[in-house]
Amino acid sequence: MTTIDDPHPPLHVPARDIPVPASVSPQAQAMLAQGMAGPAPDWPAPDDLQGWREMVAAMDAGLAVMVTAGAAGAVAAGTVVKDLKVGDVPVYAVTPEGVDPGDRRVYLDIHGGSWTLCGGEICRAVAIATAPAIGAPVWAVDYRMPPDHPYPTSLDDCLAVYRALLDDHGPEDIVVGGVSAGGNLAAALMLRVRDEGLPLPAAVVLSTPVTDMTEVGDTWQTNMGIDTVLIDSLQPAVRLYAGGHDVRDPYLSPLFGDFTKGFPPTILLSGTRDCLLSDTVRLHRALRAAGVPAELHVFEAAGHGGFHGTAPEDQDRAGEIRRFVDAHWGRSSR
Amino acid sequence: MTTIDDPHPPLHVPARDIPVPASVSPQAQAMLAQGMAGPAPDWPAPDDLQGWREMVAAMDAGLAVMVTAGAAGAVAAGTVVKDLKVGDVPVYAVTPEGVDPGDRRVYLDIHGGSWTLCGGEICRAVAIATAPAIGAPVWAVDYRMPPDHPYPTSLDDCLAVYRALLDDHGPEDIVVGGVSAGGNLAAALMLRVRDEGLPLPAAVVLSTPVTDMTEVGDTWQTNMGIDTVLIDSLQPAVRLYAGGHDVRDPYLSPLFGDFTKGFPPTILLSGTRDCLLSDTVRLHRALRAAGVPAELHVFEAAGHGGFHGTAPEDQDRAGEIRRFVDAHWGRSSR
Repeated sequence: MTTIDDPHPPLHVPARDIPVPASVSPQAQAMLAQGMAGPAPDWPAPDDLQGWREMVAAMDAGLAVMVTAGAAGAVAAGTVVKDLKVGDVPVYAVTPEGVDPGDRRVYLDIHGGSWTLCGGEICRAVAIATAPAIGAPVWAVDYRMPPDHPYPTSLDDCLAVYRALLDDHGPEDIVVGGVSAGGNLAAALMLRVRDEGLPLPAAVVLSTPVTDMTEVGDTWQTNMGIDTVLIDSLQPAVRLYAGGHDVRDPYLSPLFGDFTKGFPPTILLSGTRDCLLSDTVRLHRALRAAGVPAELHVFEAAGHGGFHGTAPEDQDRAGEIRRFVDAHWGRSSR
Repeated sequence: MTTIDDPHPPLHVPARDIPVPASVSPQAQAMLAQGMAGPAPDWPAPDDLQGWREMVAAMDAGLAVMVTAGAAGAVAAGTVVKDLKVGDVPVYAVTPEGVDPGDRRVYLDIHGGSWTLCGGEICRAVAIATAPAIGAPVWAVDYRMPPDHPYPTSLDDCLAVYRALLDDHGPEDIVVGGVSAGGNLAAALMLRVRDEGLPLPAAVVLSTPVTDMTEVGDTWQTNMGIDTVLIDSLQPAVRLYAGGHDVRDPYLSPLFGDFTKGFPPTILLSGTRDCLLSDTVRLHRALRAAGVPAELHVFEAAGHGGFHGTAPEDQDRAGEIRRFVDAHWGRSSR
């Protein structure tokens, strides 16, 4: 309803049947034809910590099945994994086949999963799958998460691991990357690193990142029900993660940072069906307005995160990331 | 209905009310709050040429009111316009205030308007408004159009004017640009120029271009009813323009061109609500796959063409185009 306080009436969009597009690969079509990834999560109440623990365990169990087989294959093919600790934070150091163990480069991988999911063995398995695509050593941060560790623990853990990398890497040898909530943490980490007076890395990779936790980005509305991966608001997870902190703080919503004070060269990736397309393009605009080198890639009919890695479009996306990181590492002294 | 011939069921999207986003400027919000630009056009039948002539005249009369006042203001401020002819094709040569009349650079502006609208005084007025933003001399092609001149006349006219420019400009001093159907013609012209053995220009600017006349791009579906500017399929105009030619021909649907054979550096611009977002990002992917330098800019909640020039977002878009053309002209010997 339009009221005096709301002078702008909403746009009424009638019900529609949207066909599987002929404009994407057969593999992408098959993925899109599966429809919604599932019913919307039955989020626990903010103070039901045990409920959150149980939901995380149940969802992670399902996700683990999808990723661990691929990781086992990569290890069999020659990828080497070392389990490290930085203080209390587990780190999985992954060197893909064909890369010299003494290679000075490192890709700091900050995993996604709504700030609550995909830790532990999933984080490890995803890093093992990521490293061959990056073509360089990967350090994956198994940062602590809500419900037991709300903000700022996750970001503190990422910062601790970045500091540890600086002990024996030049910043020009480090690239930081993240997907979804991991993109949120990666962007926030850049602001935190800068504000702490530490040197910024060579570049940052932000795939379908959450950049504005208030969720006013327009594609949260226009692509809701069309993105088959991100099928519900993340507000319950945002509230759990923020733990009462103002979500407009740039360490939570990096879109609101001041990028004129420094930010690394950035690649941003999203899809036309992604609920986080707005979060992605808004950060792209903000970075460019501040003069930060930033490039944008948007994939046809891709929802949040693409097509589960199975489509040529996913390879195209991985190829753009590889080209970008190679170009920025190429400027260093390895 | 799903049948054996259609193994992929459509995605059912329920009716929704989409609020005016808080993520854009007040000016952009005000424009979005106006809702649909009008009822869908009542397209004449393909063979009703008189009906098309009358519709074009009526629609142009309405559009002219919107653009001619701004043009008068620009001329009053010192912009100089010369009306030329290249064979049968009118060209408006516009030199903005502050630019030397002997400046060797030229921006070849190919107007939009569904291959049927925005010729004559509208083309002239838009060029007068464009030139100060480009900061260089502009040649605007008033190419002939359907219903009286179907394909390939429009493209032939653009090519004739490009050839005329080459008579006294180096190709490195020429940038070609177009919006919507003008983006379609600009991209097609690049393929035609290359295939004719002519030198390519320094760069090309494609704003919300039609790149695939078959309209299988996914945002034709997902953004239909959300884009308040492009509110209906362009197929009636496509059929009139194509005049029986196969719309998959790269001179009609440049997306299907072979870009490995050469294409200039390209900037592509669209918006998250644009029905032509898919056409834009698909061409971006195709150019990059062929190794063509191509950059993408997508504006939050912008439909086809942005916010009528009134919003800071429009200035941001114009600024990206200016930066891009300046960077490419900067490599020439002016």
